[in-house]
Amino acid sequence: MTSDAPAIDRPTLLEISASGGFEGSTRHYEKVVGDMAGVYLDEKAWTAAVEADGESALVYSVNEQKYQNGPGALIVGTSIVLPGRYGDEFAVTRGHLHAVSDRAELYYCLSGRGVMLLDTVDGDTAAIELTPGKAVNVPGQWIHRSVNVGDEPFVTLFSYAADAGQDYAIIAEAGGMKTLVVADGDGWTTAPNPRHRGYRKASA
Amino acid sequence: MTSDAPAIDRPTLLEISASGGFEGSTRHYEKVVGDMAGVYLDEKAWTAAVEADGESALVYSVNEQKYQNGPGALIVGTSIVLPGRYGDEFAVTRGHLHAVSDRAELYYCLSGRGVMLLDTVDGDTAAIELTPGKAVNVPGQWIHRSVNVGDEPFVTLFSYAADAGQDYAIIAEAGGMKTLVVADGDGWTTAPNPRHRGYRKASA
Repeated sequence: MTSDAPAIDRPTLLEISASGGFEGSTRHYEKVVGDMAGVYLDEKAWTAAVEADGESALVYSVNEQKYQNGPGALIVGTSIVLPGRYGDEFAVTRGHLHAVSDRAELYYCLSGRGVMLLDTVDGDTAAIELTPGKAVNVPGQWIHRSVNVGDEPFVTLFSYAADAGQDYAIIAEAGGMKTLVVADGDGWTTAPNPRHRGYRKASA
Repeated sequence: MTSDAPAIDRPTLLEISASGGFEGSTRHYEKVVGDMAGVYLDEKAWTAAVEADGESALVYSVNEQKYQNGPGALIVGTSIVLPGRYGDEFAVTRGHLHAVSDRAELYYCLSGRGVMLLDTVDGDTAAIELTPGKAVNVPGQWIHRSVNVGDEPFVTLFSYAADAGQDYAIIAEAGGMKTLVVADGDGWTTAPNPRHRGYRKASA
């Protein structure tokens, strides 16, 4: 949608499957392993994945729908993170703080097993496991990333204000999030990220 | 939550069942048949329901969770509309326009069979059937109401801006929504509401 979209849009049916399929979406994008340079602590493991699977191997994809960019509009979508491991670390999304940093975001798990990993710029951190029917209403001011800790795609339904935007650089500039989600037997646990240097203050 | 809530809230796990159960909710409210005076065209059928089941018979209930009232915060919740009939009309929620009328709202069906009935103040109208996995991202400026057209509870997961508020009076002042959802054999159809007088313009 562009800024010349009509002021009032007609509501449309969205058909969302547990696997993340989304009839009625207005945007689809994909992130591949080559896009994830610098994300994982274990760079050798990431390089090995690029060499084994190719730079264009899919890591996660997003379907979303919105009508307008106005402050009242919502973006609704699905996030599909494929299972994966890079050394001890599980496959993750890039993660972001909303560019308008007070904007919250709902994530409701449709299938798979994952973790919502969250940090504030002041050093608070949280990790919440999500399986089907579990959800997090990510409060404003929390940097957040999805992590797939299972063997199947980790799929969430999300909803957030269309004016929120994403600040991805805040994580890269800090040397990654404060915490890593790593394998622990058949499960997962958290470990401090030794490269994390603390966050700059949010821009908004 | 009150206005002295901390500026940054800790994210919490929400556990949402297909029947609308909601671990982690911060508010629950119920509407009973006695609250629905004037909602149905067939007042005799509504009066008969009050007499048969009592004023306090449950019609629908809502569970919701929010952290703050700020412009970026989201309310997340479940709406559970019990099956019911009042003459030809199916059981409905009161319906509302958001007090901040540009605020959108996601409804994602968790169980049952229902219709999202929608009107604009300018006379446009829409009716979208929802079954599990189907959703509507209700755009701003649309008055909306849930209707249960099935035999089981109609349950939706919803999400909308915490500052949106609800204007319920706009429907009552107009003599009801423009359209009724009525029985049609084993299914449903829409019919014009003969009492509808048109809407006043939204207040915001």
